[in-house]
Amino acid sequence: MTDAPARPQRATLPLRPELAGLEPYGAPQLDVPVLLNVNENPYAPSDEVVADIAAAVAEAARGLNRYPDREALGLRADLADYLAVESGVRVAPEQVWAANGSNEVMLHLLQAFGGPGRTALSFAPTYSMYPEYARDTGTAWQVGRRAEDFSVDAAAACDLVAEVAPSVVLLASPNNPTGTALPPATLEAVLGAAADVPGGCVVVVDEAYGEFRRRGTPSALALLAEHPHLAVSRTMSKAFGLAGARVGYLAASTALVDALRVVRLPYHLSAVTQATARAALRHAPALMAQVGSLRQERDDLVAWLRARGLRAADSDANFVLFGTFPDRHAVWQGLLDRGVLVRETGPEGWLRVSVGTPQETAAFRAALSEVGGL
Amino acid sequence: MTDAPARPQRATLPLRPELAGLEPYGAPQLDVPVLLNVNENPYAPSDEVVADIAAAVAEAARGLNRYPDREALGLRADLADYLAVESGVRVAPEQVWAANGSNEVMLHLLQAFGGPGRTALSFAPTYSMYPEYARDTGTAWQVGRRAEDFSVDAAAACDLVAEVAPSVVLLASPNNPTGTALPPATLEAVLGAAADVPGGCVVVVDEAYGEFRRRGTPSALALLAEHPHLAVSRTMSKAFGLAGARVGYLAASTALVDALRVVRLPYHLSAVTQATARAALRHAPALMAQVGSLRQERDDLVAWLRARGLRAADSDANFVLFGTFPDRHAVWQGLLDRGVLVRETGPEGWLRVSVGTPQETAAFRAALSEVGGL
Repeated sequence: MTDAPARPQRATLPLRPELAGLEPYGAPQLDVPVLLNVNENPYAPSDEVVADIAAAVAEAARGLNRYPDREALGLRADLADYLAVESGVRVAPEQVWAANGSNEVMLHLLQAFGGPGRTALSFAPTYSMYPEYARDTGTAWQVGRRAEDFSVDAAAACDLVAEVAPSVVLLASPNNPTGTALPPATLEAVLGAAADVPGGCVVVVDEAYGEFRRRGTPSALALLAEHPHLAVSRTMSKAFGLAGARVGYLAASTALVDALRVVRLPYHLSAVTQATARAALRHAPALMAQVGSLRQERDDLVAWLRARGLRAADSDANFVLFGTFPDRHAVWQGLLDRGVLVRETGPEGWLRVSVGTPQETAAFRAALSEVGGL
Repeated sequence: MTDAPARPQRATLPLRPELAGLEPYGAPQLDVPVLLNVNENPYAPSDEVVADIAAAVAEAARGLNRYPDREALGLRADLADYLAVESGVRVAPEQVWAANGSNEVMLHLLQAFGGPGRTALSFAPTYSMYPEYARDTGTAWQVGRRAEDFSVDAAAACDLVAEVAPSVVLLASPNNPTGTALPPATLEAVLGAAADVPGGCVVVVDEAYGEFRRRGTPSALALLAEHPHLAVSRTMSKAFGLAGARVGYLAASTALVDALRVVRLPYHLSAVTQATARAALRHAPALMAQVGSLRQERDDLVAWLRARGLRAADSDANFVLFGTFPDRHAVWQGLLDRGVLVRETGPEGWLRVSVGTPQETAAFRAALSEVGGL
């Protein structure tokens, strides 16, 4: 072992000034019985899914000394097939892009279309990672406000797009942390305003929670054919219950996807990740049945909260924003003291709870009844 | 299925101007019998390694509905243990950073310490991805020249560091595509010059091929204890034969690693990747034995090339830069016609060949003898 002499260390690190004093992003990771804080799917992969993933990875492992398929076209074709079944909208494999989580998909979008001298626009309250993506790519960040009911006013949004002239608009639908889906008319209005931005503007509809949308809520995928500047992002973290596998993706025009191919780091998706995702996609029907029961659980939870005099935002996602509390931190702590971890996020006075198994949701209801005296 | 009406598509995509017309980075992927073009390890994982990876992934798969360990401290501890055995230098787990390939490690470094208004400096000929990392992070890019024998002149390098005042210096050692390792005295001189840059300067020594260094060539890891602005990057793609798994890492001061924790996207390393890497690390002794035979094969290849009147750069890596040819493309094509793919890269007149199995290297020698009339 090298035993270094103690010398004066005169060098300073050139940390970018905007990063000084920042802590790494992430929800508190606490070890409690009922984890309803990060919108995970409560159902672990079945034995069949686990076995299929293990077999697929074993097969991939035999060739791990070689670089993976840089284009991941097999996976992208499987994702296109899945989207066709899930949404009724058929896109070509070349219209699908995949990366290590939606996080990396968003990074690629802002690297290609945002960056220094450009602005990304969203509507708050919304997903708290968006400004981090902007910061990490040197993109300026602006937000409009959502209405009191967390919807986006189409006319006001279009005016803001015209005024700010962003190169990227980020619209979460269903929105995190509010659960709010945007109607197609709003999306089409924003797409129209974006098309008028000099130099162009990409509209990203983030459907991370898209599979949980209520019956009658359409996916923005239906708008793809008419809008080459639209990207609809999805993830396998939520409905598929694969948060640990880190697979995000999007569908868009081929021209848009081709731009992402230029900024991606080569071999960004490992052979193991590709094999894992493709194995899970073969089990889509079974996994989608679980989504159905989570949607029911979500609707029941909203009704339960409202019946007890609380507010609960309409939700098309696998979580519910509820409140309002004069001291939300006290409620959050009270729940935690009873073994239930929810998320202290969103507008002041509200809390966000993920939809768990029936047992987990029952534990949440019991804990909240004690804490809030409901 | 949605059948969209054909409408005029008036929107344009706001592609960043510096990306216009660019093709995605990557070596040509051709299907030929002998692949010696991307410095892969020719040895596929053994049955024992495959089985251990499959078992580890099956175990991880049972919890894939949950997000992975954001800090990956288990993997970082295993990597620290491996480095201690490989190099004799012991670092703490908190001094190790891991990401999806060295590519992403470099991205994190430039996001934290480079970026708009800052410059990264390297010495050419060197790894062709470096300017892409700079471009993707808005970092200005400058290069000094290596000497005729591909070494870096310490005094000239220090003068250039003082003149350019970069916030990041990238030094590949062993260098790609030349195979050249830098002596500690050169690294220490550059570290000293970097410490004098106003605002600070991080020196990254890229040891992607570090395990292949010849006996007597030290690792820059030995310099870590004295230099908080030094980062030594490594990868599991080469010596470990895990290019398909995408695991890169670095060792540095805890302060430097903490800055990378701020810019990384949360949950950047999947649970599957962490499990795969940790399983492979348990087989380090067997994998290192293969490295020994590849080093011998490499030295024999250099001697063979020189005995035939060709130039071959001294190599501490698993590849050899050889030449020079008045028409290197014709030689590259001639080898390809004989089923051997090498890389047309580096200074004009040179070609780069990866060290393969004894059979693959024999095929290369036979093909080159035919093509070059050696």
